[in-house]
Amino acid sequence: MTHGTIEPQGGEHDRGPGVGEVSTQMVRLYTDEAPLRMDNGEQLGPIDVAFETYGTLNADASNVVVICHALTGDAHAAGHHGDPERHGWWDLLVGPGRTVDTDRFFVVCANLLGGCRGTTGPSSINPLSTLPYGLDFPAMTVADLVRVQRALLRHLGIERVYAAIGGSLGGMQVLEWALQAPESIDRAIVVCASAALTAQNIALSTAAREGILRDPDFRNGRYVGTGTIPAAGLSAARMLGHVTYVSEEALSRKFGRQRRDPHAPPARDGHTWFEPDFEVEHYLRYQANSFLERFDPLSYLYLTRVMDAFAPYERPDHQERLERVKAAGTRFLVESFTSDWRFGPEHSDRLAADLIQAGIPVERENVASPWGHDSFLLAIPEHLDLMQRFLTR
Amino acid sequence: MTHGTIEPQGGEHDRGPGVGEVSTQMVRLYTDEAPLRMDNGEQLGPIDVAFETYGTLNADASNVVVICHALTGDAHAAGHHGDPERHGWWDLLVGPGRTVDTDRFFVVCANLLGGCRGTTGPSSINPLSTLPYGLDFPAMTVADLVRVQRALLRHLGIERVYAAIGGSLGGMQVLEWALQAPESIDRAIVVCASAALTAQNIALSTAAREGILRDPDFRNGRYVGTGTIPAAGLSAARMLGHVTYVSEEALSRKFGRQRRDPHAPPARDGHTWFEPDFEVEHYLRYQANSFLERFDPLSYLYLTRVMDAFAPYERPDHQERLERVKAAGTRFLVESFTSDWRFGPEHSDRLAADLIQAGIPVERENVASPWGHDSFLLAIPEHLDLMQRFLTR
Repeated sequence: MTHGTIEPQGGEHDRGPGVGEVSTQMVRLYTDEAPLRMDNGEQLGPIDVAFETYGTLNADASNVVVICHALTGDAHAAGHHGDPERHGWWDLLVGPGRTVDTDRFFVVCANLLGGCRGTTGPSSINPLSTLPYGLDFPAMTVADLVRVQRALLRHLGIERVYAAIGGSLGGMQVLEWALQAPESIDRAIVVCASAALTAQNIALSTAAREGILRDPDFRNGRYVGTGTIPAAGLSAARMLGHVTYVSEEALSRKFGRQRRDPHAPPARDGHTWFEPDFEVEHYLRYQANSFLERFDPLSYLYLTRVMDAFAPYERPDHQERLERVKAAGTRFLVESFTSDWRFGPEHSDRLAADLIQAGIPVERENVASPWGHDSFLLAIPEHLDLMQRFLTR
Repeated sequence: MTHGTIEPQGGEHDRGPGVGEVSTQMVRLYTDEAPLRMDNGEQLGPIDVAFETYGTLNADASNVVVICHALTGDAHAAGHHGDPERHGWWDLLVGPGRTVDTDRFFVVCANLLGGCRGTTGPSSINPLSTLPYGLDFPAMTVADLVRVQRALLRHLGIERVYAAIGGSLGGMQVLEWALQAPESIDRAIVVCASAALTAQNIALSTAAREGILRDPDFRNGRYVGTGTIPAAGLSAARMLGHVTYVSEEALSRKFGRQRRDPHAPPARDGHTWFEPDFEVEHYLRYQANSFLERFDPLSYLYLTRVMDAFAPYERPDHQERLERVKAAGTRFLVESFTSDWRFGPEHSDRLAADLIQAGIPVERENVASPWGHDSFLLAIPEHLDLMQRFLTR
């Protein structure tokens, strides 16, 4: 398992050497004097951004592929940080001869604004108070996240990217990027994303946030530095989230009703009864524990809320934005997976429909996969082939 | 809204007078000296049971209909407790001239073992310690719940019921009842139930329990009497649970992406950003708040865990139990709803298949409804007609 999800066996280790050892770099893109102007009118600075690059930028900076990560991802998309057994979350995609071929492309992946893996977010220090921002961190939009992505590219001397790729929240950034600055993006690969969450999507996010916000250890967002985090809320949120990332079929195939110890005597009382018993519970417990070590509850709140609000097609300037995309010649691959029930094929259908109607070139593909939303992270041949063809055509 | 779910308009108020004012009765069914012997070998006593009855028991006690409630229900199925505007949770089903006609039937509904609405459960006082049981309360099975249901009937002088009806966990009790003591039940109406939760079902229950179990205010189950409850965990669990009780279509139809105040300025920061904004969030907030007032976190843990473990068809004596059902002549109505994604039609298909294969008479119906799992609580004409025909045939 690369990133803790359920996946088909094999594949990724037959793909030759990866990009090898890499390190995460840091850059300050905005300052107190030159802050980011955000959609809600707030100004934010300084903003530090953590990012990685793979491959070599060519002379005219025309070989840039940007990877936008999803809710719980980070800048470490490929290669390893010293332990070759522990590689980045999309390593199967990125490397010499792989789908995103680092012999040809210069690949950039940054931790997103509001994150907790190097880039400035709500648990970073607020220079005004010298305390962590907590809930004082400004409300954000996907457009704000994209502004920071674009600022990083300007810093790297890149004006136009050959392609931007992203799944889920990453795909929402790619879509917004194309709408916000189509002249800066040639090819947009938008995978299992959404241009508008449904009431059910929002409801599930609200339920996940509820446990964090009301957790006594959340302390109105002032838990940073107390030595405790709202672990109950974050753990439950991760479990709930994870269930929505995988299909019912994937869970049934992998775990069914299998118990870790089928011959264990029945529990006497509640002291042991609620411990993990079924294999699927052990799996969720493992997922939650590793999440608690690497993710911040405030970032979870902020980044899920960003998704709830994302509705680029409701903007009053939507048609003008589409016109500009068409004029810029940006091409789209809009991909979904049949068993995805978080942002299912109908989300991608709706997302693609407006683009197609505006005369923008869109390749719309619904890939058969039993693995659910997380399919975009997996070694599914049709999925990888699609992206490779779209990138090289 | 009867019980806080999403439902079609009208219907229930056009059905004539209901059963009128009723009151919940209490009875001690097991004592310290004569305890309940449970599936896990534990003994539990005393056990008090809260129940209600509607209609009149006939001379030969042959007109008894038992209603088994679901996870968060209670004994108050019909009528009102003084305020005619606030009626029981299945009032539309039970009353003079209604589907379960109280002019003909004597209807019994009890709060289940482990509950928190009158019947002994984990928040009741443990006579040994004179403190609430908390996690010392024994682990239970659906079979244990049914034993207590049957003890109540014996107390009422009833040997055989004309019919038992239940939805969800209620339906699981009805199925188990028929398998445990088929000679005591003529007709079994099993609605949107399951004979074995899937890995996804268990995973969602685990996620809901996680927030309660880890909530600092849970205090290892010793929160009763402290003045606080693990509200974060229970609230998030209720929100998650509720999302699974309604279909995506129901949520989209009723709420879509509608915001309470579409002209509100964008949130500046996290202090206001996570307040309910979309209508679906206000709805979940209301659901959670009312649940916190009426339901106990320990009961939530116990009763969801009971469902995880329920797997009557895995028992080594399963075939013998089916043979006894067939010999007793018990008939089944197994009903599901097309849009139910908690225990969808495939659960009822599997549940019915074993009965049918054993030669037991089963009417299997999949009712078209856009309202999801909670459809069993609603005034859906085909649903009510099905039950009425099955009861009167």
